[in-house]
Amino acid sequence: MDLPRGGEGLSPQAKLPHVVVVGGGFGGLSCARALRRAPVRVTLVDRRNFHLFQPLLYQVATASLSPADIASPIRTILRKQKNAQVWMGEALRVDVASQVVELEDGVRLHYDYLVLASGATHAYFGHDEWSGVAPGLKTIDDATEIRRRFLLAFEAAEREADPEARQLLLTFVIVGAGPTGVELAGAMAEIARQVMPKDFRSIDTTATRILLLEGVDRVLPGYPPDLSRRAHRQLEQLGVEVRTGALVTDIRDDCVRIGEERIGTRNVFWAAGVSASPLGATLGVETDRAGRVRVQPDCSIPGQPNVFVVGDLASLDRADGSPVPGVAQGAIQMGEHAARMIRADLSSDARAEFRYFDKGDLATIGRAAAVARIGRVHLSGLIAWLIWVLVHIFYLIGFRNRLLVMLQWTWAYVTYQRGIRLITGDRRVEVLRARAPEAEARVQPSPPTQNS
Amino acid sequence: MDLPRGGEGLSPQAKLPHVVVVGGGFGGLSCARALRRAPVRVTLVDRRNFHLFQPLLYQVATASLSPADIASPIRTILRKQKNAQVWMGEALRVDVASQVVELEDGVRLHYDYLVLASGATHAYFGHDEWSGVAPGLKTIDDATEIRRRFLLAFEAAEREADPEARQLLLTFVIVGAGPTGVELAGAMAEIARQVMPKDFRSIDTTATRILLLEGVDRVLPGYPPDLSRRAHRQLEQLGVEVRTGALVTDIRDDCVRIGEERIGTRNVFWAAGVSASPLGATLGVETDRAGRVRVQPDCSIPGQPNVFVVGDLASLDRADGSPVPGVAQGAIQMGEHAARMIRADLSSDARAEFRYFDKGDLATIGRAAAVARIGRVHLSGLIAWLIWVLVHIFYLIGFRNRLLVMLQWTWAYVTYQRGIRLITGDRRVEVLRARAPEAEARVQPSPPTQNS
Repeated sequence: MDLPRGGEGLSPQAKLPHVVVVGGGFGGLSCARALRRAPVRVTLVDRRNFHLFQPLLYQVATASLSPADIASPIRTILRKQKNAQVWMGEALRVDVASQVVELEDGVRLHYDYLVLASGATHAYFGHDEWSGVAPGLKTIDDATEIRRRFLLAFEAAEREADPEARQLLLTFVIVGAGPTGVELAGAMAEIARQVMPKDFRSIDTTATRILLLEGVDRVLPGYPPDLSRRAHRQLEQLGVEVRTGALVTDIRDDCVRIGEERIGTRNVFWAAGVSASPLGATLGVETDRAGRVRVQPDCSIPGQPNVFVVGDLASLDRADGSPVPGVAQGAIQMGEHAARMIRADLSSDARAEFRYFDKGDLATIGRAAAVARIGRVHLSGLIAWLIWVLVHIFYLIGFRNRLLVMLQWTWAYVTYQRGIRLITGDRRVEVLRARAPEAEARVQPSPPTQNS
Repeated sequence: MDLPRGGEGLSPQAKLPHVVVVGGGFGGLSCARALRRAPVRVTLVDRRNFHLFQPLLYQVATASLSPADIASPIRTILRKQKNAQVWMGEALRVDVASQVVELEDGVRLHYDYLVLASGATHAYFGHDEWSGVAPGLKTIDDATEIRRRFLLAFEAAEREADPEARQLLLTFVIVGAGPTGVELAGAMAEIARQVMPKDFRSIDTTATRILLLEGVDRVLPGYPPDLSRRAHRQLEQLGVEVRTGALVTDIRDDCVRIGEERIGTRNVFWAAGVSASPLGATLGVETDRAGRVRVQPDCSIPGQPNVFVVGDLASLDRADGSPVPGVAQGAIQMGEHAARMIRADLSSDARAEFRYFDKGDLATIGRAAAVARIGRVHLSGLIAWLIWVLVHIFYLIGFRNRLLVMLQWTWAYVTYQRGIRLITGDRRVEVLRARAPEAEARVQPSPPTQNS
């Protein structure tokens, strides 16, 4: 469908209601696809040109998958959907009075229906100064940054003569033991202990310390307590030092503080908090502490039945008072619900309440280690891991990616190899310098082969 | 082998001669591997942690392969070679008098033998100001930058209301018709004409102009003239406008000039010239115009029999007066020769002259389109392309990569899909802005859906 451009003439469809969907994540994309047979024009706006399969992002951060393995161009996903167009751009604010989404480059998109699905990013609980030393994991660029730091730490340690400085480089601290933190810690421990040892000559990578810090009293706080215990045990079996009830009070270039305690490290990764996309606040309705928009039972916002908010940006309670969880399933189901409501409006049907269908929870810890809750059934170990693998491959969008990821995982499982260990980006040397100045100064007077 | 660190004690091997190899490309890596059974200690220095299979770099630039598909960590390649260690760092200069390589971070590596294989980078013939507008293609970061610009141009064109500005965005100029330029032009034409059309709603990507400019009178100047003609024809069949005898005199943000002629474009890519790594000049011996080091027939430098220069950094003529070509085979063979000479020295054998074994030339143009010279046999079209595919898969280092690349190519061939079309990096919006300010200003007053 050719959308009209600057008065180049209107096609008949141009009179159809215009649905603007902001965000090409799980929520926005499922909404756009659910509108494929509806008598509407859909414009999906995203600042990126690809949909990201976020549950596997930690595998990019730990050099097990390539970015392209978990991302698909949004245009390709929607190429056959004639009533949809993709607009690459960043939405800055919504003007509900004039029904317009304003983009960063000045473009104003008029909507008849708006579906806001711009998600969340990581938050440092008022400590934005930590963002430089403790990168979080929400985007592909975050993931390649964590990968670079993780791999560079071993390279710097290999060249480091001073044992103390070397230990700082080989200590990795992950803040936050939700699914992302647990997955990162488990994968890093596996790589350091089982994959890397033979690659290095001077350092013993099996002596790498991986610390997982959690503020509350157990890992995976959103899971049933028995699965938290099992995850805790599996993490320790992989060599992760798990510290619960450990509230981080400061993060520096060379240490993390928990109250009075100081843990020396050159590598801190942040998996502790999220805050909603700032776009939600521009709607002018109530938001919660994390910036999420309080939506009505049908996912629309108070006073604006043509504006929906779905996914991580939305805050909605279930019948039992518990919130709809901020996971892919929640976003997908809400996105589809918003599409159903728009179709209902157009055929003058009544609106319905959103009901979250809880398919369960899955978190992986390592090779053949995971925890799963499916309804009331709690599983852990190999069986949970196999379910995890199947579910994640099934949901990966695009057949090519599914096939490639399965092959890569099979290969990694059989050979224990990790192939994606590339350190890219131009800040390579600067990063090392900025992070370990003394380390490099110490090497200088006694280089490894100077004596030969 | 544990190399001594800051006086932590010397292992018996520490008294073995120390061979420092600078550069983990084809030349350096083949040299290091050829020394695996020699009574030496090898230290391979590279500023990157991976070996790059450069002949396929254009496929990363055109979103057909992921960076990890054509790169392998050097440590993993050398993990089983006990007499080798890898040192990630950037070599700045060589002090031949004291037999030391100085690294950027102040480390000084003493050598008994030095093999310099730091290659070449692209050069702008004294027009360094072109580097910002016309990126070249030598590194992974170059490739992802070209990929980003290539993909962003279509995104910007899709949003552009003004037909003239849109045409500038959809015009791609490649300067230089050596193998890299030919491969880039062919791949870009294929993607624009055969893969992208269905992804866009407002632009006709089959109207994309791809211009390939070459200063001399034919494409692939290093190939036999009949293959140049056949390559020229195959490029035109793909829709590439080939211009020979076209010397570029200026490159701007919005145009390329050939003498008085002005070609309007927002996208220029540089595939015209290379210059050798600046490390060569620090040896204090004769270099040629491109900065390559004139080496002796045994690949060592005049007056320093323990210093070898191999690959793109070396300049050496064959018996017939023609130079050893700057291709992977040349680097591999020279690297192996340097290793043989070191082994000969250690067993007091005589040195020998390097002889280049010419396996032929191969350049690909597109799907089932290529040219090949194998000895005196000249081939083109599908048969040349099949040879090209087999040779490149065979030489890809690391079985995992070979398998994955083969699968991806097969998949791409069958489905005509390109899956790696990710625009990453944070400069996303800035790049667009900097490159098309008027374009965006024009969009503003007449946005596509404002009228609805």
